[in-house]
Amino acid sequence: MSDTHALDTLVQSLRRLPGVGVRSAQRMAFHLLQHDREGAQVLARSLQEAVAQVRHCARCYTFTESEICATCSDPQRDASKLCVVETPADQAALERTGAFKGRYFVLMGKLSPLDGIGPRDIGVHKLIERATDGLVQEVILATNFTAEGEATAHVIAQALKARGLTVTRLARGVPAGSELEYVDLGTIAHALVDRR
Amino acid sequence: MSDTHALDTLVQSLRRLPGVGVRSAQRMAFHLLQHDREGAQVLARSLQEAVAQVRHCARCYTFTESEICATCSDPQRDASKLCVVETPADQAALERTGAFKGRYFVLMGKLSPLDGIGPRDIGVHKLIERATDGLVQEVILATNFTAEGEATAHVIAQALKARGLTVTRLARGVPAGSELEYVDLGTIAHALVDRR
Repeated sequence: MSDTHALDTLVQSLRRLPGVGVRSAQRMAFHLLQHDREGAQVLARSLQEAVAQVRHCARCYTFTESEICATCSDPQRDASKLCVVETPADQAALERTGAFKGRYFVLMGKLSPLDGIGPRDIGVHKLIERATDGLVQEVILATNFTAEGEATAHVIAQALKARGLTVTRLARGVPAGSELEYVDLGTIAHALVDRR
Repeated sequence: MSDTHALDTLVQSLRRLPGVGVRSAQRMAFHLLQHDREGAQVLARSLQEAVAQVRHCARCYTFTESEICATCSDPQRDASKLCVVETPADQAALERTGAFKGRYFVLMGKLSPLDGIGPRDIGVHKLIERATDGLVQEVILATNFTAEGEATAHVIAQALKARGLTVTRLARGVPAGSELEYVDLGTIAHALVDRR
């Protein structure tokens, strides 16, 4: 289809979305052009708006449209507890539980030495600055329970403990509602070690 | 996250893409804002460009940036054969085979009575007009082999045969490279009936 340059470009651009291969990108482009041109225009405007408006909170680096995000500016939140997460999505998941009333620090992802992503790239130096503000007493590490997330937690714990802070980690264990028979061995082993 | 209106709007807009639920939309939005703001802007521009540039060929209704698409304007293509497909994506799949040298007619989807999509909505009247131009001798139905695609083929075949045109259908049968043991019974039954 040599006379569909704009369509080919759109397919290429859609492939920049995570999890979208060439087939999905084609299906999306065809769908928008055939059935939802208004949706395409709405999406274009939302993308431009979000890029223009959304920035990182100056204190916790989550997404916000203000200088300081709503959570950081909320005087009701406990300033002595700081929860460290990998992404704003993880922060949103924790917020949905309603179980945490402290503040957050959002890393720029996780350590990944093989991809050349070190502590500085994910903002560990900013976290240290933030955690040593004199108000924070406990830092709760809520990075993911993957190899990279665990490594990230380990590196941060070392750095913060050296500065005299209390560092805790989310409990590992059997997920709520699950039957032991179907839980993987590593999880059961951890739940045994961390029994209370 | 009350101060992230632009982010929430972006997530909603991404959900208009086919196959994208709320989780994927969030992941896409976070990814673009955190790691690929340039990609977000490129995508916004491509969407606007495509909506502005891409239209339907006046003869076959496929996507094109010209009045008449490249396939319809190509004098080398056999004007006596017209292949009917459901979507530009299906046309692209047929073109990739290199096995068809005639022309195309792209329907606006498939019949779906339950969704209120009748023959006129998918452009059957335009197809009849196109197929009775005096040059077309054979119409090859290449709608999908789904319930809706078969129904669409049936309705079109009736209408075109009534106007004295030769109407054929893509052969049903065992896919190339497959072992009979793993082919579904309906396919084998059809391959038996259509044996040659």
